[in-house]
Amino acid sequence: MEMTVERLKERVKAGRGLVPAHKVIKGGQLVNVMSAEIYPADIAIYNEMIAAVGDVSAYIGKDTEIIDAKGRFLVPGMIDGHIHSECSKLSITSYAKAVVPRGTTSMVSGLDEYISVSGLEGLREVLEEMKKSPLKVFWGAPFKTPYTIPESTVTYNFTKDTHKEVQKWDECYGVWETVREFVQEEDEDTLGAIATAYNNRLPVFGCAPMARGNDLNGYLCGGVRLDHESYDHEEVVEKMRKGMHMLIRESSVTHFLAENIKAVTEVNPYFARRVSFCTDDVTATDVLSKGHLDNVVRLAMKAGVDAMTAIQMATINSAEAYRIDHLVGSICPGRIADILFVDSLENFNIEEVMTNGKMVAKNHKLSYELKAPERSPILKGKLKCKLTGKEDFEYKAPVESGKVRVLSMDVKGPFVRKRRDVVLEVKEGIVQPDTVQDVLMVSVLERFGKNGNKALAFASGWKLKKGAMASSAAPDDNNLVVMGANAEDMSIAANYLIEQGGGQVVVCDGEIKEFLPLPVGGIVTDLEPEEVAAREKRIDQAARDLGSDLPDPMMYMFFLPITAIPDYAITDAGPVDYVNLRCFDPILEVLK
Amino acid sequence: MEMTVERLKERVKAGRGLVPAHKVIKGGQLVNVMSAEIYPADIAIYNEMIAAVGDVSAYIGKDTEIIDAKGRFLVPGMIDGHIHSECSKLSITSYAKAVVPRGTTSMVSGLDEYISVSGLEGLREVLEEMKKSPLKVFWGAPFKTPYTIPESTVTYNFTKDTHKEVQKWDECYGVWETVREFVQEEDEDTLGAIATAYNNRLPVFGCAPMARGNDLNGYLCGGVRLDHESYDHEEVVEKMRKGMHMLIRESSVTHFLAENIKAVTEVNPYFARRVSFCTDDVTATDVLSKGHLDNVVRLAMKAGVDAMTAIQMATINSAEAYRIDHLVGSICPGRIADILFVDSLENFNIEEVMTNGKMVAKNHKLSYELKAPERSPILKGKLKCKLTGKEDFEYKAPVESGKVRVLSMDVKGPFVRKRRDVVLEVKEGIVQPDTVQDVLMVSVLERFGKNGNKALAFASGWKLKKGAMASSAAPDDNNLVVMGANAEDMSIAANYLIEQGGGQVVVCDGEIKEFLPLPVGGIVTDLEPEEVAAREKRIDQAARDLGSDLPDPMMYMFFLPITAIPDYAITDAGPVDYVNLRCFDPILEVLK
Repeated sequence: MEMTVERLKERVKAGRGLVPAHKVIKGGQLVNVMSAEIYPADIAIYNEMIAAVGDVSAYIGKDTEIIDAKGRFLVPGMIDGHIHSECSKLSITSYAKAVVPRGTTSMVSGLDEYISVSGLEGLREVLEEMKKSPLKVFWGAPFKTPYTIPESTVTYNFTKDTHKEVQKWDECYGVWETVREFVQEEDEDTLGAIATAYNNRLPVFGCAPMARGNDLNGYLCGGVRLDHESYDHEEVVEKMRKGMHMLIRESSVTHFLAENIKAVTEVNPYFARRVSFCTDDVTATDVLSKGHLDNVVRLAMKAGVDAMTAIQMATINSAEAYRIDHLVGSICPGRIADILFVDSLENFNIEEVMTNGKMVAKNHKLSYELKAPERSPILKGKLKCKLTGKEDFEYKAPVESGKVRVLSMDVKGPFVRKRRDVVLEVKEGIVQPDTVQDVLMVSVLERFGKNGNKALAFASGWKLKKGAMASSAAPDDNNLVVMGANAEDMSIAANYLIEQGGGQVVVCDGEIKEFLPLPVGGIVTDLEPEEVAAREKRIDQAARDLGSDLPDPMMYMFFLPITAIPDYAITDAGPVDYVNLRCFDPILEVLK
Repeated sequence: MEMTVERLKERVKAGRGLVPAHKVIKGGQLVNVMSAEIYPADIAIYNEMIAAVGDVSAYIGKDTEIIDAKGRFLVPGMIDGHIHSECSKLSITSYAKAVVPRGTTSMVSGLDEYISVSGLEGLREVLEEMKKSPLKVFWGAPFKTPYTIPESTVTYNFTKDTHKEVQKWDECYGVWETVREFVQEEDEDTLGAIATAYNNRLPVFGCAPMARGNDLNGYLCGGVRLDHESYDHEEVVEKMRKGMHMLIRESSVTHFLAENIKAVTEVNPYFARRVSFCTDDVTATDVLSKGHLDNVVRLAMKAGVDAMTAIQMATINSAEAYRIDHLVGSICPGRIADILFVDSLENFNIEEVMTNGKMVAKNHKLSYELKAPERSPILKGKLKCKLTGKEDFEYKAPVESGKVRVLSMDVKGPFVRKRRDVVLEVKEGIVQPDTVQDVLMVSVLERFGKNGNKALAFASGWKLKKGAMASSAAPDDNNLVVMGANAEDMSIAANYLIEQGGGQVVVCDGEIKEFLPLPVGGIVTDLEPEEVAAREKRIDQAARDLGSDLPDPMMYMFFLPITAIPDYAITDAGPVDYVNLRCFDPILEVLK
């Protein structure tokens, strides 16, 4: 919100106690992250602002609401330092319902999935949705879209010219997820985004897994301030010694805390000062069962970090890393009133939550009804691709019959795909998938009405014996991904999503087994988090019923289009070789 | 300097070691303020940038200059967090010659005295001078000029509209010295400056001595980030618990370190994280004899702070407080190469200094010739006031003869003026100064050609038995201040400065005893610091020869026009009552 002289006058008066506070929180123990002290203190709140902390009796008027905090610890609202909330398949409104009751009151996010499917218009709509939710976003403008190399198709290409415009927006707090390889390769859009940020004095957020030595030096000379992805604590140590802020990622798919935190617990406790937390990708199931940043704080304590330090990592440290500490991250006069009521520092159970000066959650539930906004046609999911036929999922061989050796992408974890050479039969000019050898077909269909791209390749590891599955949510581009044991079911799965306007589906023998509608941009839903969690389970169970033994068969597929993951990926531009950053032909050899 | 894609490409290449470093510093012990560790590390430098730290052998080419740092500690260049360099009477060029060899490579400054005498044009000229010096300035735009209440006369009134323009400048890093009373009184220009800074996401630097409780809360709700003026450590503690960064001031006139640092050494070592140093006002004499920030670091160590923490206070902590830590404050890849070569952490003797990647000082002296630029007419001192006559310094009484009781401003320290009631004789309608009772005349003459204002009042504490002294340098407005035991010598002193185009002078019995020319804006000189120090001594000695026993008679006078000092001041608008913030009549009573 724009600051004005009139607003400042009101703020100063409220701070001085010349007008009574709207609310006073009484009787709690203040967790003062600025001084690393815990002591009894009351808090006066005026509108969304903390007006005073300490003895606030002078701020109480006849209409001041008194909120009892006896026996509770008052902790600043927590900040998720790097999150793609879209990966949860929850809309901002639904996502807020899941994480705010767990104490996450701010998030730093690129909202990049929304941009990939709906451009700046859709983004503006989401930013407005955000303002009506109890969750704040500090938006980082994606360094570019798409992130993929070679370039895949998205609805909106975010370029260096986009940065010149959007970096002036109130909501923009920096450059999001600046992938090291693009800096190193001197990509014009990426360097343009950084140069503009430098001149605007906005921080550049990084993404540099496994960057060490000279590669890291070069990246830092490119002006990147922080990173959220380190594979081990030695990497954390090197990055921090070289001046970076480090976010430790503890997501639903990668669990880095236990290893990364050793930088603090084993190498040098001083590093704690510039360590903070992020969750990057989370599922509704995980948030509902384990918690969100509250869980990360508990994990950090379990790993040997004291409670105050762990809380600082979840609050003020992130705020300082992103230069938003004048707004959030501490309970001090003039800051936004995001305050958690916590039972004890050992349990760290978030009992109640205040955001923007309003009590919004209790006992892990939002305490008021929050409705999703009406969506404009921009965000109403419509997959702009033609209905498919089974021939779209049949791999044409260079021979009419015989055998071919193909490269199948073999999934070895959510973020690892290895080369697997297999010999497949060719019948009537079509390479046959082979469930006995665990070789399925996988396809990505461009779905923004731009070029009708279709890619087709081979995948292993999913072990489907029959049927197919498809998803219109698939980071980072969110084209339509389809995988299956036969072309008929693949076509049915794809067509169902096209007809429904987006979602995730499992099909077998021509029948829809499970479906999760994702009508907002084809990537997220306004369903309640509990409902999404339940359907997620059913979707994965349906895939397991087809033979898969992966923990999250749909999510493993969903990540296939990310080209920044070793060693293989597939986008609408074709199957991609991560090492050489180019498309490859999966047919390796025609056997005699 | 504007960042461009081309510059970024070059930086990234240099960081990766694809082009050889220009210089490599070998064999030193790195004082890593980011990790609070000290270990051997070499440093590769490309142009003004640190390209790599650690093993930098891959960065050495055949033309790389090797700088030997064996046996030395490599410390980041220090940052003076709040300084009016003009108060030293040294031009930026001369000031750099004094402080850079002592390890101060950056300063945060409002350059407000320059603005008061030469407006934005003069300021631009000084900013350009700065860029040619080895000293960096991070400029804060003064919250307004003049600061005085009631408003006095300056050459340029800095308003909220000025802020809309200058906050867009590359050089602008925030709002300077936002005095609490102006926030509290809801001054439109002040709140306008803050609102603009909020919307531009620039920090607001404060000035809130003795602000506590609700007054402090109100100030913080006004959006102020940091402060440099606390009278005792309890005040420091309260401000820090409420979320402020604290600069400890150790100036030539006020020595707050020993008391303020107790917040860290006695109350809570954690506060160290957001404590930094500033010197506010320093004399050439002090810098040359005691040092500058190097001395403050030594004082902090003497007060019980460990060397690493003291160095952090002088470097990274300031950088973080002002959000310039991506540029200065640490020795990390991508930062500016400001590096000090220090003999030992105990002595903390700055042996050599690199700024912007160039070796610039050795053994407390600049190691190359630095010439002051040619000044434009804007900055060439010209006092635009009429020559005076003795009648200008005669106080007209309401009676022809008899006695009057007057309020004399009694100086009790550089920053304390108390009320003293004295009875003076009236002869021929003129109130007579009285050297026996230690009552002198003091006058401030408007000198920007705006309105010809003249103020006259009574002052005690200087104990001049005869003669007069005058100064055209006098913060914050720099009108012409004259003090003396008789009107004739006062007029001669004033006229001499008018004829010379500015300076400081001591006169006795019609004779010029000492003179320090200040031809740049009437406030500073390009003379060498040693020369200024010598003349300062002679000036004060000349004042002492007239009877004064103050340590710095000229400086005590020089501060008289600052209205933010209790309990009295004098500006060209008249003598000022600090408590009621209005002019007063020094004639209290006509005695029968």
